[in-house]
Amino acid sequence: MNHVLGQLKKGKLTMVGAGPGDPELITLKGTKVLAAADVVLYDALVNEALLEYCRSDAVKIYVGKRVGDHKYSQAEINELIVRYAFSHGHVVRLKGGDPFVFGRGMEELEFAESFGIETEIIPGISSAVAVPSLQKIPLTARGVAESFWVITGTTRFGNISPDIALAAKSSATVIILMGTRKLREIVTIFCRNGKGGTPVAIIQNGSLPEEKICVGNVDTIESISIKEQIGAPAIIVIGDVVKALKKLRGDQPKLNSIAPDEVILKSIFE
Amino acid sequence: MNHVLGQLKKGKLTMVGAGPGDPELITLKGTKVLAAADVVLYDALVNEALLEYCRSDAVKIYVGKRVGDHKYSQAEINELIVRYAFSHGHVVRLKGGDPFVFGRGMEELEFAESFGIETEIIPGISSAVAVPSLQKIPLTARGVAESFWVITGTTRFGNISPDIALAAKSSATVIILMGTRKLREIVTIFCRNGKGGTPVAIIQNGSLPEEKICVGNVDTIESISIKEQIGAPAIIVIGDVVKALKKLRGDQPKLNSIAPDEVILKSIFE
Repeated sequence: MNHVLGQLKKGKLTMVGAGPGDPELITLKGTKVLAAADVVLYDALVNEALLEYCRSDAVKIYVGKRVGDHKYSQAEINELIVRYAFSHGHVVRLKGGDPFVFGRGMEELEFAESFGIETEIIPGISSAVAVPSLQKIPLTARGVAESFWVITGTTRFGNISPDIALAAKSSATVIILMGTRKLREIVTIFCRNGKGGTPVAIIQNGSLPEEKICVGNVDTIESISIKEQIGAPAIIVIGDVVKALKKLRGDQPKLNSIAPDEVILKSIFE
Repeated sequence: MNHVLGQLKKGKLTMVGAGPGDPELITLKGTKVLAAADVVLYDALVNEALLEYCRSDAVKIYVGKRVGDHKYSQAEINELIVRYAFSHGHVVRLKGGDPFVFGRGMEELEFAESFGIETEIIPGISSAVAVPSLQKIPLTARGVAESFWVITGTTRFGNISPDIALAAKSSATVIILMGTRKLREIVTIFCRNGKGGTPVAIIQNGSLPEEKICVGNVDTIESISIKEQIGAPAIIVIGDVVKALKKLRGDQPKLNSIAPDEVILKSIFE
């Protein structure tokens, strides 16, 4: 043991948010840290194209968890971080979205710090915010929604989060992650609160080429999502801001085909 | 007028989120679009270091609004976008954080689209998520908070958002932007809901070198923030997740000074 301790490196852990999926939606700082990493531990929702920023001699380990394909337990990931920090030096923990939004980033950070390992955070773009934005759904809009509430559809006990019942009573735009398997329960809760007519969008694989979206309202979204075969990973957005979506208004965007209004143009140019 | 219309370019508007302040927290995609821009219209909260990604011949216009220093009205900004899209081509609208979180990005987008101008969104890291993350405050944590609610402290009418009273009843981590001027009203609402002992952090200039933070609980944060001279722009985080902050636990981080627990180390290495 003393022999092992004598060879330990100082070690460092950097938690990096990979963003929602599109590899160009990582931050500049994130790519720089990837280039400096001795070891990268990455999750299922991370785009593997990001590993191209790493040195060729960096150790790259997939530690993702997928339903029915359990790769590493949280305790094993914590251990890997500490082990590699001491044996190789700089460990980068690359997580989908932002490391602190419905990830267990804090547990990993605290475990590493309990060994005296220096830690740093580089935030990432959370899918909760970016995926609706990319669909031109604003999470807030003056006079429509003054706030947004981000909730997990499935808690650690596998049941529906009690926050969803409170959210259904609020005027916030409600964004539910990991909720497609609970869609029936979610719409039931919103209906019970008189929100059957509130617009809903479900966006699967947001920011990626295979992105799919379906829109409806609380009453209709379940059957629409079945018909359009929308599944996980997906984000559910419930609120009047979804009306901003042209598709829902039956108002298909005709980009560059609308004649500029000459009266307004004149006022702008003259 | 016909003379003017004959010279019009096709035009394009790209809304780009600049992130929370640190210029390295913009996305790769954001820097690429800045490099391609013919015109950049940027806000007060945007780090001017980002303008270095622009071509030297790009037109760069500050359209920021600051209290007591009103530069451009929203209508004027909308007009500038359309005017420059037709006269110069590709307009980038660079906004602090994410363009669709408490910005008026949607209004600008719709105005441009009504002239047939093609639009695109590049999301940015919202301060609401990143600034707590950078302080190692997780917005969600298993068994502590299953959701987070992002609210503006000041509505367009200048009064406090009614959502704050609902948030005080919820179990969500509550993040209030633009709320420091309403701090007394906010803490009064939380106290009325029996939350006097809930931890609070206020972070000013998050992600920048001049970042400042103060921590306390709902009962004490107002006097602490006055003593520590925390002012706008700042983010208020209310919830038990703030306990993760070492400062609050009186548990100053002693990075690389803690001796690794030999028993655990042994179990990891052997």
